[in-house]
Amino acid sequence: MREILRGTGFLLHIPGIMALVSLPVAAWADEGWALANLLFTAALALAAGQGLVWSSRGAGGFQRYQSMLIAALSWVLIAAIGALPLWLAAQAPAAMAGAAISFHTPAHALFESVSGFTSTGLSVVEQAARLPAHIQWWRSLSQWVGGIGVILLLLAILPAERGAINLYFSEAREEKILPTVKSTVRAIWGIYLAYTLIAVGLLWLAGEPGWRALNHGMTAIATGGFTITDQSLVNTPTRVQLAYLPIMLAGAVSFVIHYRLIVERVAPPRLWRMAELRLLLWVTVGGAALLLLERWLTVGDGGGLTTVFVWVSAVTTAGFTASDLSGWGDGPLLMVLLALIMGGMAGSTSGGVKLLRVSLLLKDLLAQLRQLRATPHQVVVLRHDSERVSPERMAELGRIASRLIGMFMLLWLLGVLVMLHGVPADTRLGHVFFDTASALFNSGLATGVAGPGLGTGPSLVLSALMLLGRLEIFPLLVLAAWAAGRR
Amino acid sequence: MREILRGTGFLLHIPGIMALVSLPVAAWADEGWALANLLFTAALALAAGQGLVWSSRGAGGFQRYQSMLIAALSWVLIAAIGALPLWLAAQAPAAMAGAAISFHTPAHALFESVSGFTSTGLSVVEQAARLPAHIQWWRSLSQWVGGIGVILLLLAILPAERGAINLYFSEAREEKILPTVKSTVRAIWGIYLAYTLIAVGLLWLAGEPGWRALNHGMTAIATGGFTITDQSLVNTPTRVQLAYLPIMLAGAVSFVIHYRLIVERVAPPRLWRMAELRLLLWVTVGGAALLLLERWLTVGDGGGLTTVFVWVSAVTTAGFTASDLSGWGDGPLLMVLLALIMGGMAGSTSGGVKLLRVSLLLKDLLAQLRQLRATPHQVVVLRHDSERVSPERMAELGRIASRLIGMFMLLWLLGVLVMLHGVPADTRLGHVFFDTASALFNSGLATGVAGPGLGTGPSLVLSALMLLGRLEIFPLLVLAAWAAGRR
Ligand SMILES: [K+]
Ligand SMILES: [K+]
Repeated sequence: MREILRGTGFLLHIPGIMALVSLPVAAWADEGWALANLLFTAALALAAGQGLVWSSRGAGGFQRYQSMLIAALSWVLIAAIGALPLWLAAQAPAAMAGAAISFHTPAHALFESVSGFTSTGLSVVEQAARLPAHIQWWRSLSQWVGGIGVILLLLAILPAERGAINLYFSEAREEKILPTVKSTVRAIWGIYLAYTLIAVGLLWLAGEPGWRALNHGMTAIATGGFTITDQSLVNTPTRVQLAYLPIMLAGAVSFVIHYRLIVERVAPPRLWRMAELRLLLWVTVGGAALLLLERWLTVGDGGGLTTVFVWVSAVTTAGFTASDLSGWGDGPLLMVLLALIMGGMAGSTSGGVKLLRVSLLLKDLLAQLRQLRATPHQVVVLRHDSERVSPERMAELGRIASRLIGMFMLLWLLGVLVMLHGVPADTRLGHVFFDTASALFNSGLATGVAGPGLGTGPSLVLSALMLLGRLEIFPLLVLAAWAAGRR
Repeated sequence: MREILRGTGFLLHIPGIMALVSLPVAAWADEGWALANLLFTAALALAAGQGLVWSSRGAGGFQRYQSMLIAALSWVLIAAIGALPLWLAAQAPAAMAGAAISFHTPAHALFESVSGFTSTGLSVVEQAARLPAHIQWWRSLSQWVGGIGVILLLLAILPAERGAINLYFSEAREEKILPTVKSTVRAIWGIYLAYTLIAVGLLWLAGEPGWRALNHGMTAIATGGFTITDQSLVNTPTRVQLAYLPIMLAGAVSFVIHYRLIVERVAPPRLWRMAELRLLLWVTVGGAALLLLERWLTVGDGGGLTTVFVWVSAVTTAGFTASDLSGWGDGPLLMVLLALIMGGMAGSTSGGVKLLRVSLLLKDLLAQLRQLRATPHQVVVLRHDSERVSPERMAELGRIASRLIGMFMLLWLLGVLVMLHGVPADTRLGHVFFDTASALFNSGLATGVAGPGLGTGPSLVLSALMLLGRLEIFPLLVLAAWAAGRR
């Protein structure tokens, strides 16, 4: 317990530092009235964090189990503290608050903050362009920090995932497991920062104004999806839309791959043997083609780049949109839904169940089918990423993946059943499913259910789902394991 | 190959005998014009069956793999032959054909026949009361034969399922596996026949007219769902509705249990240790209570017995309805959908993924959670039906169950995507999901998508789904195993 408090205390410094970093932004934007809000947030976060650290002196190192609890607890608390600047801005006179008035209720402020730190991107703001600049910045920063948080969560904490990812590389006969966490973390921070700078530059070159390039560059590499424009990227010129595509895709590629490529200088062809990376390519290209076809079949017009943009935004779970999805037919919407449920690669900033798990499930299924067909004396040889894998290991990985996906699906269904009691009676069921999935799988695409009109109850339900999705349902697993162990 | 043709030939005699048995019905109902149709069907079925048997003389016994192929092939061919009397009746002058005009297109006749032999119960007939009597009988008989077919399929062919079911009884220290197939089959035929007679009698005593009691008794014990009334059991008196409940539940209880109870005289308390049986009770009672609550929350009126009836009809996948589901809200409809996806017990006449698999998945999940919590040196003890099960065996059973459920879900989704191109543009997405699931999980409840207005394409798609669902996706598994083995 002491260890958990200590770890949480360390992490609570993060929103404090974020608030301090945001002070110059408020000053630059002539929003002097907001300085007090940010200072108060910083003071609260740093005091709470430091208090926890002090009070838990003498705690030992963390065990794996405890690390996971620390991550879960911190994410919730950081999001709660992160809601403060939003809520405080909403209390300012209307002329100053502008569109921040959307955060007038604590539930809405919390929802937006959770959506930020989980880099989901759902928003209760109607006109993000009319938000105070420091709030625009705060939202973007929360997603950017949330994005790197997810990567580090996987590297530092979730060992089953790391094992599956390292499968990829044992093939190279180097048997290289990722080096000690500390040095990896520093390198990946560097990569993330460099990619962000490149993203901002690219958007600026493509024609986005400076402030927008900065904010959107941060939320694009984090596959976050918050924008400082009123209608996401609808009506954005083609050239600019194109610039977003490689950034979203870079964010959805595992940062382990970026690390191997950049720090370890692994040859690209070797990385290509990774099933998950190839799956990302196939899903992106093949899926976009299918979606163009489906839209062409249903509305007589594929939609061109707009459709491709929405597909990439769905697969990477970036959640930007170039088209108003509430007007899309059920078939295309269902395909987009499938994409955002799958999500990007494990170890990236994206959400969803992750293509790693999809790929493991497919391999496991293939293995089972081969065994079904094999004669009793035939030995079935399995390969994953060109490496032999024992059938038992494959079954174990498939089982972990299917357990997680199953729990995601149940949680989604439960979420929809609860949401149905909180949305207007004429809401289309498909839209409730879509937007609930968007929260749970940290996508941010929405059909209008999760928007400015969201009630207090649904806001809290979706906030919980965003957090559970980001933490890969781990808190529920702990609870369930505890309940299962009691009997 | 020769063995498969031989086995199929034997089974093709079934529709021939059914047609001969139906001759007296047509005569009794003064439908002399239909005698030729039935005779032609009988001649075709018997000639085709006998031809196959003769041409494959000298074939050896069947291997397990071949038995499954025989079952799949026969089900398709029997349903195709079974469509003949329907289609032929539709070609008669309108005064004679009556409502059988619905079968004028081969696709509709096939759909109805498949729905019969898979005991699904979806129908393209608007006014079943206006069908010729021999067609009413033919539909009921097809469901009744389909019902016993499913039970025997499980007993004789699917070994993984049998293994899981026999888990239940090893606990009794008798280590009794079901006796040789032949004697079991005869006993279960007897039980099925006896139950049918009791069902018919019960309905007649409750107040159903004789002809209706006969037809509905047959389709109720088969959890088939065809009726000879216009609106299923909407507007049926309470007393009569009550009489259907025990019959549907008896059909949804594994006939292995009926066998143990009646033939082996196993004490009921011992059967009670079966997780699947207890799950059926909890799902029936608890789910009905939740559905009453949900309807009360959404429309302010629980609906009383009508709601309970729909719930039982969904869980048992009988598919009778006492309420027009197209008017139900999304929340209650979603709950009904969940029930019909789960279905009744394995080895019963019901559809769905079967409660056995749900129970195995739950146990497996529980086991995984306990192991997550256990210290490395702790031994986790698992029990299934009061019997110790090794974690490996549990994992294997859970894996088989999750593979199947996963494939069901994918097939459902694919079915919906295809169906969306064949239904009117203003059809509600939830209804497409519901009725597609109703076909795949052999439920028969419908919101109106699968009904008289069904186009040719959707008719064929849903027919394929009904067959795949009834055969537990086995044909797809064979195809996939074949494709997986080729590489
Ligand atoms: K997102
Ligand atoms: K049925």
